Amino acid sequence: MKNFIFGIHSVFEVLKMRPQDVEQIVIANNRTLKNVEDILNLAKKFHITVAYKEEGWFKRAGSMTHQGIVAQVRMKKEMSLDDILNLIKAQQAPAFFLVLDEITDPHNVGALIRSAACAGVHGVILPKRGAAPLTSAVAKTSSGGMEHVAVIQVANINYALDRLKKENIWVIGLAAQAEVSLYDMPAKQAIALVVGNEEQGLRRLVRENCDQWVKIPMVGEMDSLNASVAGAIALFEVVRQRIKQ
Amino acid sequence: MKNFIFGIHSVFEVLKMRPQDVEQIVIANNRTLKNVEDILNLAKKFHITVAYKEEGWFKRAGSMTHQGIVAQVRMKKEMSLDDILNLIKAQQAPAFFLVLDEITDPHNVGALIRSAACAGVHGVILPKRGAAPLTSAVAKTSSGGMEHVAVIQVANINYALDRLKKENIWVIGLAAQAEVSLYDMPAKQAIALVVGNEEQGLRRLVRENCDQWVKIPMVGEMDSLNASVAGAIALFEVVRQRIKQ
Repeated sequence: MKNFIFGIHSVFEVLKMRPQDVEQIVIANNRTLKNVEDILNLAKKFHITVAYKEEGWFKRAGSMTHQGIVAQVRMKKEMSLDDILNLIKAQQAPAFFLVLDEITDPHNVGALIRSAACAGVHGVILPKRGAAPLTSAVAKTSSGGMEHVAVIQVANINYALDRLKKENIWVIGLAAQAEVSLYDMPAKQAIALVVGNEEQGLRRLVRENCDQWVKIPMVGEMDSLNASVAGAIALFEVVRQRIKQ
Repeated sequence: MKNFIFGIHSVFEVLKMRPQDVEQIVIANNRTLKNVEDILNLAKKFHITVAYKEEGWFKRAGSMTHQGIVAQVRMKKEMSLDDILNLIKAQQAPAFFLVLDEITDPHNVGALIRSAACAGVHGVILPKRGAAPLTSAVAKTSSGGMEHVAVIQVANINYALDRLKKENIWVIGLAAQAEVSLYDMPAKQAIALVVGNEEQGLRRLVRENCDQWVKIPMVGEMDSLNASVAGAIALFEVVRQRIKQ
């Protein structure tokens, strides 16, 4: 992940969550920005420099959709899968992981991280290769979500699934061919939801490594949801089952 | 809506659903396209011309993300809200509408139409002004969804809601401030789900015109889902309740 965070919402979230890591805020000097009072107040509170630069600077920094505001941050200390598993044990909560198997569109990765942060996931696991890299485009689509949920990049998804299973976490793959409905999955126990590639779905080895497959019942004329939408529906089915009496 | 349909998936859907309206298929002559055999077979079957043009033509036609393939189609006969209501009466099914109140991002509109098509919605209602216009960008993000679900543009959302209520359709607004959980909404009866603007949510008059508000319970550190994701979660909660015994 680059050390630039683009966009009003994302900049606000990083200021709120880890102001100590924000080196400076850069604002476009040719724009009249609305809704940045909260950001400016936080910057003042934490004595963070606010610099004004011309539009060209933002393009060179690598974003076309920066909304005229950028936070320059120190890299976040990365959490490993073991760190998270230890954290969950300390919390005594049923584990809840989202595993992304080669989601290649950065907007889908960002959207899934955002939804995962809203659903209270402990960690989002994705492969170092084969998936969209964690660029600033991902951070921006996550709309601050990357500040709220641990994102763990692993060398091998199957090794990570084995590690989860060793901790008695039930691994559930989303697959259109499944016979069990999403709504019948056992979500009150410790689980990891696995979402596959936009076109091909789960790869064979990953699919075989799942404890169970579930599908989202389609009742319309179409039967293909966007991967980030399918993932979000599954995440919030877990929320529904867990908050139900 | 323009009469160009861009992208492999969307072109395939329009050929499948209304081949009689497809005037020609245009393919980029500098690309090696994969996965177009099905399209070429359908074109052959229905005697539809396949033309090859250079990359520049696609840009002039208005798309940067056309995947090298475009279908030129006749405008679809538009269905009115009354047409759909009559259809529902004939089917004797509980009505299921999605109402978009000023969703301004064309990708969100397209994504919501796609999810609505998968959830078996009877019609997606959106305002003629104030929402993203139904451009080819919307059609492409809908991934063929616009071919499968009726999209009705109305001059005034509140008049449309009044019309739905007159037919005993329960109007449910998604609102973060609601006290009732999404999971407790009465989705087995005839309903219309109303999703508001990405930033401001439902406008005051629309909000007041709803029979009930519901919220998606957030259990993570973040509490703001993308509008198209929130809408999809609500749509599939309706599916869940309706297929449950």
